[in-house]
Amino acid sequence: MYYIFKKILIIIKMIKSNIIILGCNSSLPTKNFHPTSQILYMRENYYLIDCGEGTQVQLIKSRIKINKINNIFISHLHGDHYFGLIGILSTYQLLKRNKKLNIYSPKGLKNIIYEHLKWSNSKITYPLKFITLKSKKYKKIYENNDIKIYIIPLKHKIYTNGFLFKEKKKLKNLNIENVKKIKEIKISDYLNIKKGNNFIKKNGKKIPNNYLTFKSKKTLSYAFCSDTSFYPKITKYLKNVDLLYHESTYLHEKKKLAYNRGHSTSKQAAKIAKLSNVKKLLLGHYSCRYPNISKFEKEAKKIFPNCETSKNLKKYYI
Amino acid sequence: MYYIFKKILIIIKMIKSNIIILGCNSSLPTKNFHPTSQILYMRENYYLIDCGEGTQVQLIKSRIKINKINNIFISHLHGDHYFGLIGILSTYQLLKRNKKLNIYSPKGLKNIIYEHLKWSNSKITYPLKFITLKSKKYKKIYENNDIKIYIIPLKHKIYTNGFLFKEKKKLKNLNIENVKKIKEIKISDYLNIKKGNNFIKKNGKKIPNNYLTFKSKKTLSYAFCSDTSFYPKITKYLKNVDLLYHESTYLHEKKKLAYNRGHSTSKQAAKIAKLSNVKKLLLGHYSCRYPNISKFEKEAKKIFPNCETSKNLKKYYI
Repeated sequence: MYYIFKKILIIIKMIKSNIIILGCNSSLPTKNFHPTSQILYMRENYYLIDCGEGTQVQLIKSRIKINKINNIFISHLHGDHYFGLIGILSTYQLLKRNKKLNIYSPKGLKNIIYEHLKWSNSKITYPLKFITLKSKKYKKIYENNDIKIYIIPLKHKIYTNGFLFKEKKKLKNLNIENVKKIKEIKISDYLNIKKGNNFIKKNGKKIPNNYLTFKSKKTLSYAFCSDTSFYPKITKYLKNVDLLYHESTYLHEKKKLAYNRGHSTSKQAAKIAKLSNVKKLLLGHYSCRYPNISKFEKEAKKIFPNCETSKNLKKYYI
Repeated sequence: MYYIFKKILIIIKMIKSNIIILGCNSSLPTKNFHPTSQILYMRENYYLIDCGEGTQVQLIKSRIKINKINNIFISHLHGDHYFGLIGILSTYQLLKRNKKLNIYSPKGLKNIIYEHLKWSNSKITYPLKFITLKSKKYKKIYENNDIKIYIIPLKHKIYTNGFLFKEKKKLKNLNIENVKKIKEIKISDYLNIKKGNNFIKKNGKKIPNNYLTFKSKKTLSYAFCSDTSFYPKITKYLKNVDLLYHESTYLHEKKKLAYNRGHSTSKQAAKIAKLSNVKKLLLGHYSCRYPNISKFEKEAKKIFPNCETSKNLKKYYI
């Protein structure tokens, strides 16, 4: 009985939305820390967010098959956020990928990739689409049956976007026992009820939706904000997010340096989390000047207690 | 006494020419094998040969300070041989390098690098020189006081060079005791004698150089040949080389595939080594289809016994 319970728990965990950190360092790589990249698992799909050098090896280490990725999101064109992309695209070609791949990024990434291909006399034969992000406003850029994705304009040295991933409400499950009791309800009404609407009988009497359906699960949301200086304007887009990854390149003692370089301190990341009323904060994008990252967590926790430092190859449930 | 002897041995090893393998896999990276890159240490200088993705982290792991590299040699523009270069160039910029850096590569690499810089609004402020290789003949491309470097045209899908690194003869050390015995020899004659010339006395009598100097050390040579199909023409340039790294992407059972893809088998690498009468052969550039690389060595040893499979981060003395 115990083992069955344990197995069920493992399966629930497997299908629960999560993020794996493939890299959480800033521009200078070190032996154990890699430049920015994350893989988000949400509603049975994988979304790659940023792609620093070495991301494909990090994906192998995280045991995620790269062919499961159909959408890649690049925040900005500083190398520590995209130098690993050309390697992944080449690997897809070698592995004879035929599925479509979408890449959402600022202008220029397509030019860079095709410059590489030109000189190596190579071609990409799988369907590859570059979606150029140029809006400086909060905007929906992607939607499927399960999730919606928005860009959040950030404040950095070059055009940079954060990304907000929001699960969509699933259709509710019918309480079929109760549904059967209302003779007037036909099968053709089911979809409307599953969407959350009440049922109105011919005599005008309202049958409330919560009598006809089971309570639906809460939808989850994840936001990625890197790189950016302290930018409170974004908090209106981050309201009540379940998990926020916010960069914290420096400790607050270096707040001037952070500002000059378009980065944030861990204290500032915590302030954003607090102002946005997010559930949990994940820190990252550490400058290599800090050998001990625990100081980031200590500083941020004074303002926002439910926070954690992101660690290489660790999985965080949303 | 034992410890002094041991320390001397360590110092001798430190200054002996060697090669460290930073990556020896072919195009698909795996968890433990990296794409091609090597660092050659010869006469107190470091030379980087090829630069697959992740090379800068491999350099950190090999404990070689990247700022010691002043010359980079790129064999060809397939990604597994150069995707790591842009990362290293960016790191140099972040580390405020000011020393000159030379990059020897086929045409196009400069275009690729500047396309990256253009879209990230970045600049390289240290002196960076691209030397375009276009000759299809064996040719000297570099010379300093200590070594000469030649390109060896290889046979691959695109324009590809191997590289031959040859130590130059050092000036001989004077046997000052014997020199003093010949009163006619002035200090101004020393350089001529150090160069290996005999001394001719006024009366026409020849004093042989080997009386006036100590025996000079043997000069060493290293050759890198990857990627290439079986190409016996190169053996004339590889004659008596001390250490030859020759690609062996496949075992000989896949010789047709090797030929079609512009690669060699380990048996073919061994044949090249034998025909060239090299001292030692190092195999590499393994296809990821082989989880066990010991088979390469076994196959090659039947033809050329003094051979070894190159391994990640291992140092090989020349």
